[in-house]
Amino acid sequence: MAYWQVNKIKYIGPHQSLKSDLGFQYYNPEEIIGGKKMKDWLRFSVAYWHTFDQRLVDPFGDGTAIRPYDKYSDPMDQALAKVDAAFEFYDKLGVNYFAFHDRDLAPEGDTLRETNQNLDKIVDKIVEYQKTTGMKVLWNTSNLFNNPRFVAGAATSPYADIFAYSAAQLKHSLEIGKRVGAENYVFWGGREGYESLWNTDMKREQEHAARFFQMAKDYAKEIGFQAQMLLEPKPKEPTTHQYDFDAATTIAFMKEYNLDQDFKLNLEGNHANLAGHSYQHEIRVARTAGLLGSLDANQGDKLIGWDIDEYPSNLYETVAAMYEVVQEGQIGPHGGLNFDAKPRRSSFEPNDLFYGHIVGMDSFAAGLRVALKMKADHVLEDIINERYNSYNSGIGAQIEAGTVNFTDLEKYSLDKTQAQLRAATHSDHLEQIKDTINHYIIETLS
Amino acid sequence: MAYWQVNKIKYIGPHQSLKSDLGFQYYNPEEIIGGKKMKDWLRFSVAYWHTFDQRLVDPFGDGTAIRPYDKYSDPMDQALAKVDAAFEFYDKLGVNYFAFHDRDLAPEGDTLRETNQNLDKIVDKIVEYQKTTGMKVLWNTSNLFNNPRFVAGAATSPYADIFAYSAAQLKHSLEIGKRVGAENYVFWGGREGYESLWNTDMKREQEHAARFFQMAKDYAKEIGFQAQMLLEPKPKEPTTHQYDFDAATTIAFMKEYNLDQDFKLNLEGNHANLAGHSYQHEIRVARTAGLLGSLDANQGDKLIGWDIDEYPSNLYETVAAMYEVVQEGQIGPHGGLNFDAKPRRSSFEPNDLFYGHIVGMDSFAAGLRVALKMKADHVLEDIINERYNSYNSGIGAQIEAGTVNFTDLEKYSLDKTQAQLRAATHSDHLEQIKDTINHYIIETLS
Amino acid sequence: MAYWQVNKIKYIGPHQSLKSDLGFQYYNPEEIIGGKKMKDWLRFSVAYWHTFDQRLVDPFGDGTAIRPYDKYSDPMDQALAKVDAAFEFYDKLGVNYFAFHDRDLAPEGDTLRETNQNLDKIVDKIVEYQKTTGMKVLWNTSNLFNNPRFVAGAATSPYADIFAYSAAQLKHSLEIGKRVGAENYVFWGGREGYESLWNTDMKREQEHAARFFQMAKDYAKEIGFQAQMLLEPKPKEPTTHQYDFDAATTIAFMKEYNLDQDFKLNLEGNHANLAGHSYQHEIRVARTAGLLGSLDANQGDKLIGWDIDEYPSNLYETVAAMYEVVQEGQIGPHGGLNFDAKPRRSSFEPNDLFYGHIVGMDSFAAGLRVALKMKADHVLEDIINERYNSYNSGIGAQIEAGTVNFTDLEKYSLDKTQAQLRAATHSDHLEQIKDTINHYIIETLS
Amino acid sequence: MAYWQVNKIKYIGPHQSLKSDLGFQYYNPEEIIGGKKMKDWLRFSVAYWHTFDQRLVDPFGDGTAIRPYDKYSDPMDQALAKVDAAFEFYDKLGVNYFAFHDRDLAPEGDTLRETNQNLDKIVDKIVEYQKTTGMKVLWNTSNLFNNPRFVAGAATSPYADIFAYSAAQLKHSLEIGKRVGAENYVFWGGREGYESLWNTDMKREQEHAARFFQMAKDYAKEIGFQAQMLLEPKPKEPTTHQYDFDAATTIAFMKEYNLDQDFKLNLEGNHANLAGHSYQHEIRVARTAGLLGSLDANQGDKLIGWDIDEYPSNLYETVAAMYEVVQEGQIGPHGGLNFDAKPRRSSFEPNDLFYGHIVGMDSFAAGLRVALKMKADHVLEDIINERYNSYNSGIGAQIEAGTVNFTDLEKYSLDKTQAQLRAATHSDHLEQIKDTINHYIIETLS
Repeated sequence: MAYWQVNKIKYIGPHQSLKSDLGFQYYNPEEIIGGKKMKDWLRFSVAYWHTFDQRLVDPFGDGTAIRPYDKYSDPMDQALAKVDAAFEFYDKLGVNYFAFHDRDLAPEGDTLRETNQNLDKIVDKIVEYQKTTGMKVLWNTSNLFNNPRFVAGAATSPYADIFAYSAAQLKHSLEIGKRVGAENYVFWGGREGYESLWNTDMKREQEHAARFFQMAKDYAKEIGFQAQMLLEPKPKEPTTHQYDFDAATTIAFMKEYNLDQDFKLNLEGNHANLAGHSYQHEIRVARTAGLLGSLDANQGDKLIGWDIDEYPSNLYETVAAMYEVVQEGQIGPHGGLNFDAKPRRSSFEPNDLFYGHIVGMDSFAAGLRVALKMKADHVLEDIINERYNSYNSGIGAQIEAGTVNFTDLEKYSLDKTQAQLRAATHSDHLEQIKDTINHYIIETLS
Repeated sequence: MAYWQVNKIKYIGPHQSLKSDLGFQYYNPEEIIGGKKMKDWLRFSVAYWHTFDQRLVDPFGDGTAIRPYDKYSDPMDQALAKVDAAFEFYDKLGVNYFAFHDRDLAPEGDTLRETNQNLDKIVDKIVEYQKTTGMKVLWNTSNLFNNPRFVAGAATSPYADIFAYSAAQLKHSLEIGKRVGAENYVFWGGREGYESLWNTDMKREQEHAARFFQMAKDYAKEIGFQAQMLLEPKPKEPTTHQYDFDAATTIAFMKEYNLDQDFKLNLEGNHANLAGHSYQHEIRVARTAGLLGSLDANQGDKLIGWDIDEYPSNLYETVAAMYEVVQEGQIGPHGGLNFDAKPRRSSFEPNDLFYGHIVGMDSFAAGLRVALKMKADHVLEDIINERYNSYNSGIGAQIEAGTVNFTDLEKYSLDKTQAQLRAATHSDHLEQIKDTINHYIIETLS
Repeated sequence: MAYWQVNKIKYIGPHQSLKSDLGFQYYNPEEIIGGKKMKDWLRFSVAYWHTFDQRLVDPFGDGTAIRPYDKYSDPMDQALAKVDAAFEFYDKLGVNYFAFHDRDLAPEGDTLRETNQNLDKIVDKIVEYQKTTGMKVLWNTSNLFNNPRFVAGAATSPYADIFAYSAAQLKHSLEIGKRVGAENYVFWGGREGYESLWNTDMKREQEHAARFFQMAKDYAKEIGFQAQMLLEPKPKEPTTHQYDFDAATTIAFMKEYNLDQDFKLNLEGNHANLAGHSYQHEIRVARTAGLLGSLDANQGDKLIGWDIDEYPSNLYETVAAMYEVVQEGQIGPHGGLNFDAKPRRSSFEPNDLFYGHIVGMDSFAAGLRVALKMKADHVLEDIINERYNSYNSGIGAQIEAGTVNFTDLEKYSLDKTQAQLRAATHSDHLEQIKDTINHYIIETLS
Repeated sequence: MAYWQVNKIKYIGPHQSLKSDLGFQYYNPEEIIGGKKMKDWLRFSVAYWHTFDQRLVDPFGDGTAIRPYDKYSDPMDQALAKVDAAFEFYDKLGVNYFAFHDRDLAPEGDTLRETNQNLDKIVDKIVEYQKTTGMKVLWNTSNLFNNPRFVAGAATSPYADIFAYSAAQLKHSLEIGKRVGAENYVFWGGREGYESLWNTDMKREQEHAARFFQMAKDYAKEIGFQAQMLLEPKPKEPTTHQYDFDAATTIAFMKEYNLDQDFKLNLEGNHANLAGHSYQHEIRVARTAGLLGSLDANQGDKLIGWDIDEYPSNLYETVAAMYEVVQEGQIGPHGGLNFDAKPRRSSFEPNDLFYGHIVGMDSFAAGLRVALKMKADHVLEDIINERYNSYNSGIGAQIEAGTVNFTDLEKYSLDKTQAQLRAATHSDHLEQIKDTINHYIIETLS
């Protein structure tokens, strides 16, 4: 029985169809490009929550989604059917990875014991499927934000019982991660922040969060779960402020609590925008700190002030993200591109899930092609090398080597004229760079 | 003597050079496309203020620009040299239009009489150049914002002497418009708004503005200056709020004061973004009201909260803007694309002015090509026609014809089930549309 | 049986308690101030949806609310219990008005006929309560946004059957408005906008909306329902763009379609902020156009990009709003202050509904007291009168009278020096004004 | 000769005048409150650049300021006159501190040698004044952003000669700091960021910045200049991104380069808002990290996307900032409140400088009074103590002590029911807290 009324999505190549249809024009998984298979550069992952659970609600409207397993009214029956639908979806889409929260898979019981029992049944089925399909888990995570008990946080809840419960819930999530062989484990702290500073002890809450992360790491070690641990920044929705505001803020926290050896970052484009940054910026910040772990594939609308989790389609953004990845040589040690993205509420049919992933995968594949072409041509490297060239010898090299001090530099500079100093600077020709990028996009993809 | 160390910029066609260089890859002025010469679709105009006057200052830094007429220290000598440089620039860039404020051209004297004398000298020279070159003025305008006397407004100043002076200044600007044959006349009310509501009589100020516009229109008629009058919206910089916040707000004002017969809108992408809109949105709003006059060619950075007036390079935005233009059949009755754009402060060499215009002209030319191709293929028309099809017959046609009322519609709807109503709606497949637009961009420009 | 474990909230006067408790310190309903009873100035209204229906969900979390009628599992039983709880709440809070959507009151059936039957049962009970309590309805409205059928709009849906259904639903809502004696009828077009311009015929949609409003007005007239019709602007949540973006945009629409005689505006602070405006600005714009109808009482957080509907507590904002109301002489012909506000998700106990209304009512009552004191002292009138004084005689009066033209004004201005013109302008002393407002807040409330 | 036509500003106490006038109603410098003189809590500082140099320009308008030393046309004469005017201003306003950039004081020459000579002349005069008046310098700093040579940065310039020059310039600024006895030394990196990531080597730039700070610290030590070094975050104006984006980002940088022992933070309200934060948030983040150094006194307009540097007047913001200060016991080890604030462009008369400082000083003094009253009453401490109480014993204490692990916590939680867990959480009553703060403001200041 087929849940999805589509054939397997194939690579058809560019120039095949102007109207979007069910084929990849840029994503050719087995093609070797820049020394690796395209699928190994990108490691696309389907997000369980957006793809199979999301009903397309918004704050002013009920869900519109039509899904092939809607006929099941019993929650466990539906959860089991979803696993079948999910693996059929992965196969038809042609991806090798997926990602999930614990609560995506199965309904909660009245106690954690019951909840874990529900969950284990579904995980059993997933593990079976993995054996026959080879499907891998890019990461798993724990939903510590939806249930009302997390109203004031999970690890940063002011209520110790909620911290305890969160730890217990996470424990099982780590165990599941081990069972499914998850390559990373993600923490998104959707309730780890504050609604108001007036009633918040920020320091105590952050200490609790740090302890929670340390305990998680210790337990993973204890059970031999070797996933890369990842923190995922987001600035403010749903709370007024979340502690993992952006990459830099999260890095400050990691350094404060000595977590930067064991944790890296999982970054997202829409979250970047909500923090006032471009996605490229966040990736660069993480790379610069040696803390890039994995990436979420989505896009926001910079004129909209909340998280819309749109499938990526903007080639400027995918080129920029993939440029950073190409410079890094990989997304992260175990990183991939997880589609933290959902159809618009008005794209409510089952096939829209395919269209969404296709535009996303093709957009990132196109971004990879363009970024590799730019790298091959050294187009930006040449600009950068020339721009910083004055540090490669002379006074610049001495500055970098630490062999000059303020007194030396005063001697060097004291009688330089305004004109001499102006002459030391050069135009950045930023307009030319923008035009060049347009050319690379068009020509590479032609 | 050449001011600009470049040769005439020529159309070289696509695929010629990945690195941006001094040639057009998409803008081929004489090419007939969609039934018109490309140059007649686009009517590119160089902005005097940004191109020849702008020193590339910012609120924290002095000007960095290096310009070929910097050697002239006397303001009138420099103003005269700028005219030579400007016409050489127009010729080398290959544009047929330019635009200017009165104060762009010549320095102020102590009185308006002296100021006008300075100005007339420069205009004389411009008119001479026009005779030999055929260069046309897309629009002229009056700078009623820079001088401290306009601190609290020009037409909306609480001080009647400033209103009077503004009228007198504008009078001469209209006369100049007539002399240079300006096709449009633009009003940007950079001080027509408020810093604080607490000391502002909004109604009285708006009445003054309306009277000012009516007087301007009357005087233009009196002297036989037949330019299309245009209001240019911008939401808030430099004041806290400007009355011409966006297209819709300006339309409300025009309708309130019966200005909508004689005035249309001049729209700008960066201003659109500052008001929370896409550029396409502003153009659509103006088109829908029959009030689209002309367009500014620039782009903003939606993560930045002020006007950056960047040269346009984002193909998504130029495609969207040109899609609206193609649907309209023209930009406006006398409209064109004026480059209200400047190089970045770090792109300070003379040639950056060429690079900036090239990326801008090529981006809009590319946008035009893509929009025409989409129109030729009816790709979006088909979607829209199908989407609204239920209004072309049956109950929908009756609704549009006004032949049914609430009682009729209740009868029609009272026993329809939830499922029947859901079935009346269809998925918008927005992800597929986004993918299709990517394909059109790549394939059209390949 | 009491649903709410509080006593009737009384006016206790200022200086009684620093910690907020269950008493009003500024709101004294029967006190005559500025020539009217305080309750007649403010006409506070409780919003049914936020107060009785809202479960305190957010996009990442289930509802946290604890409500006294949670024990009822049958939807109609709960709906009936809510009416009892509501009228007890109104009484204990001491308000005279409430407001509701049709769908707030009763669950939907499978057809509109069934839905109306459910609804009528609840309205019967409400009407009974009104007879014994004198409670009035500030406004009612129709929820044309939540059900999936409205995914692409109601009056602006591309699907004629949905327009028809919306009309039918609204018809009954108008009939209910008449039964409960609603003083206003509000339209909030939460789905009347677009998700993407690419598949949207904006003009056709706006014509449909206009026809819908006209039909609604006609039907109200037909049945003798004399409520003031009100449109409520909001810029973008839940859609990418809503047609009623802000006051000015809505006014432009009303003027285009000749709705400005029969419709006015219902404004909201949080919506104002999302459109880039202060609440005071929106009220001023509506007043200036003679279109102020009614007000929503809530506040946003300008650092947050979505609608938070917080109870108003910021005295600067309530003073500014009430200053506009005091200048107008009233909120609107039938206007009041409806609490479109809800507790934070972490304020989940029943009593938080009282605390929220108390801080809101006291904040607006304080705002009224301060605004009336400022008006009594002519503090801002004097500033404004002096500021615009040059228009009361001489050239200014001639400008306003329309007896001078550009030629006259050129004569008047041509030989004025820079210094003379500067001398015509005066410092606004805005810092002094801000300090004065602080003093008025403190001293009036002391 | 008096530059300023006002008498010495005196404390007149509250309730003296509703209209703002030249007297303090809340700032009583010698009053002992919360165990310290008010002036020692607040340590107000006048900013030389805004108060004496600022011409009130904006990007679309020339300066409007009228200043008593405008008559001096020679730059050095004017610079000397400004010193007289400044010390008269300090005296009349009644402050004990001021702050300045090197370039605020004297004009640049063609070489640094000449520039330093100009500067030293002015500093001589300042030092003389300090001897007779006791005026202290809260902090000095170096303007490494205005001159075109800093177009691409100072310490992060890609051009080594500019780094060298910046070091040389800073060297002399440190020497001046020592001469005037500055208590802090501030670095605001207005050009230390990027315009575009495409041509930026972020890592190399940040390493250069770190080296620069280390060299600065070393040189200060060498000459015995014992000021506290401070970094001042600002997210993006004038560049696209500045490395010191906000407090957390700057802390990440400081920790990465081991600067957190020698540097602390100087924070500003308007900068906080531009980064998406409240001012209180930034202060809390710095306090939590033990890195609060000093504060700028200004406010932004959250609906405006650029730095407006308005004098503080919003009591909610001053109460929140001073609450943090009161909790800390001081602003910072040597911190004060520097008025990085200027009059609006339309408040252009000399006296507006006094009005601006008065509303600012009174607003912060009021904030201090309210914060101390709240602390004295333990109003928020009680809320916080109760809220986190579950960590003071039992499982919470074990979590904090690190004596439990995930396995223990699973045992503790596994059979807890949903209802039991909900019962562990409590309403935050945030609406009540907001009302309480309103009461504290009114009652304390009455």
